[in-house]
Amino acid sequence: MPSVSDPLDRFWAVIPAGGAGTRLWPLSRAGRPKFLLDLTGSGRSLLQETVTRLEPLVGDRVLVVTGARHAAQVRAQLPQLDVSQVLAEPSPRDSMPAIGLAAAVLERRDPGALLGSFAADHVIDDPAAFAACVREAVGVADTGRIVTLGITPTHPATGFGYIEVGEPVGGGAARAVRSFVEKPDADRAARYVAAGTHLWNAGMFVSRAGVLLDELARTHPDLAAGVRGIAADPGTLEAAWPGLTRIAIDHAVAEPAAARGVVATVPAPFGWDDVGDFASLQGLLGGRPGELRVLGDGEVLGLDSSGMVVTGDRPVAVLGLRDVVVVDTPDGLLVTDLAHAQEVKRVVEELRSRGLDDLT
Amino acid sequence: MPSVSDPLDRFWAVIPAGGAGTRLWPLSRAGRPKFLLDLTGSGRSLLQETVTRLEPLVGDRVLVVTGARHAAQVRAQLPQLDVSQVLAEPSPRDSMPAIGLAAAVLERRDPGALLGSFAADHVIDDPAAFAACVREAVGVADTGRIVTLGITPTHPATGFGYIEVGEPVGGGAARAVRSFVEKPDADRAARYVAAGTHLWNAGMFVSRAGVLLDELARTHPDLAAGVRGIAADPGTLEAAWPGLTRIAIDHAVAEPAAARGVVATVPAPFGWDDVGDFASLQGLLGGRPGELRVLGDGEVLGLDSSGMVVTGDRPVAVLGLRDVVVVDTPDGLLVTDLAHAQEVKRVVEELRSRGLDDLT
Repeated sequence: MPSVSDPLDRFWAVIPAGGAGTRLWPLSRAGRPKFLLDLTGSGRSLLQETVTRLEPLVGDRVLVVTGARHAAQVRAQLPQLDVSQVLAEPSPRDSMPAIGLAAAVLERRDPGALLGSFAADHVIDDPAAFAACVREAVGVADTGRIVTLGITPTHPATGFGYIEVGEPVGGGAARAVRSFVEKPDADRAARYVAAGTHLWNAGMFVSRAGVLLDELARTHPDLAAGVRGIAADPGTLEAAWPGLTRIAIDHAVAEPAAARGVVATVPAPFGWDDVGDFASLQGLLGGRPGELRVLGDGEVLGLDSSGMVVTGDRPVAVLGLRDVVVVDTPDGLLVTDLAHAQEVKRVVEELRSRGLDDLT
Repeated sequence: MPSVSDPLDRFWAVIPAGGAGTRLWPLSRAGRPKFLLDLTGSGRSLLQETVTRLEPLVGDRVLVVTGARHAAQVRAQLPQLDVSQVLAEPSPRDSMPAIGLAAAVLERRDPGALLGSFAADHVIDDPAAFAACVREAVGVADTGRIVTLGITPTHPATGFGYIEVGEPVGGGAARAVRSFVEKPDADRAARYVAAGTHLWNAGMFVSRAGVLLDELARTHPDLAAGVRGIAADPGTLEAAWPGLTRIAIDHAVAEPAAARGVVATVPAPFGWDDVGDFASLQGLLGGRPGELRVLGDGEVLGLDSSGMVVTGDRPVAVLGLRDVVVVDTPDGLLVTDLAHAQEVKRVVEELRSRGLDDLT
């Protein structure tokens, strides 16, 4: 049983639930973003799985920050949350205003509150390892650092940012963060992974609420004051929100704080994926290499084919195609291959250019 | 105006309307065969186009022979035909019993009747050239020969049988037929086309009804007597039909008659296609080489893609695929490529092996 002073008792999960997921069209749409979808065949959405993964750590200390457009769907998927636990952003302003507002709300409730931000649309394959890493991060964060979970790379990915690690911190596995590195090219990614000096930046930050806001106040004082003002007087949300700086937490806080030497990372050995495109999704689906993988309950006939099929309401036959991607939904069908997974957003752009916005 | 003795006045079009078209699944089905479909975007089915193409030659002298299962759909598509003009086969027994029965029916009506058999599911691009060839074939056939239309090859196809031509016959373009050649391999096909000695066998035969049946009587006397017996007493159709030999007209009559030197061919310079698979269908659709061709009214977004899409009831996006084939129907979706067009029947076999016969 944790003692009264256990920082975990003051730890809240903040779950930013945003992002349209245009590279997953037609599965995800502006009005049906990927965090609301069951992309793993578990029967639960990525958002629901995120909350379930955090429950052993935080119990009911959860705040979800989402767009006003999706708040009703979020509440429907998470009926255990009360009305104050779903913060609805009037408009998207990137991750810093969203997480900053949550931090300001928590800081007012409890000046010693800690928070961890965990995106609503990521997949993690080992909840126990995840919980162990978060526990260590919370302990280090309670000493005044900003702590990120750094995923141990499994391959030289070019689609993620990296974290350059430094000396040990806090007596456990945690290490100082020397710098955050933007998505590298293939050569640099290969060097990072071979040298063992870099971890993937999964965007999971743990800190005391006040520390996060004070760091923000160093670089963007208006933004820090803005979210603290809204927390003090929630009635000002609609009026104040549009004036907040649109910026990601990485640029607003993580990178400047790393430069000041106050960021640490806990190396995280579990499997993690941001389900950014169909190539990523295909890797998460069960099945043997070289065979067609399936998401959905529909009948699939794969003859001499590999890749993936998302089934809709009719049988799908695939004949003689390698690495194909077929996504069947009631109002849109996509056919491409894994090599073009990053370019699917071009389809969404083309639909908009044809005035078919209601399909995006 | 033709004279009373013009053989065209005694000429009937016999239209065998059969064949499931399993290589066009899921567009064609056992219960919705390809001759009932609009595969050219003309707004009319291949069967309707076949009848329209023949009307200038035969007026209303048309007999359609089809399976009992499809007779009602055939009559619905051809309301101008009276009940006696659609012969319903109790079961499929290949082309010779079907055409033989039509010949026997016509022979009883008029011992001088001529007939031409024209499959219900072929496409011809020049109706005037077609009519001119048929007129010449009818004239030659009235002298007692069996006459086939031989399509001038446009490429060394390996999917069609060939006709080896001999000396001129009848003073026009017609030539004697030395032999019928089964589908050749690529080398032989290339030699045939380079030498100009061979034409494609499109299965279009013109002859006097009595001549066809007498030739049949030489090789298959039971079958000739069988269809003549049914024509004499239509009430015996159901009982007698299952006992008829199951055989194609090529083997039953054309090849033996060619060996006897009584078959001629009229070289046919028009474009012809049997729409045997999606590669064939793709070639018939409008569009530039290297671009995605479309059959159907649905929205199609082709990005860096070629091949063909058959649209259903929703938008289809294809990204980065060459020579792809996407066929979207309400109860079945096929994704393959042109190189696998001949193998689509494997999908139908797989559906049957899974007990999904109602989808085939």
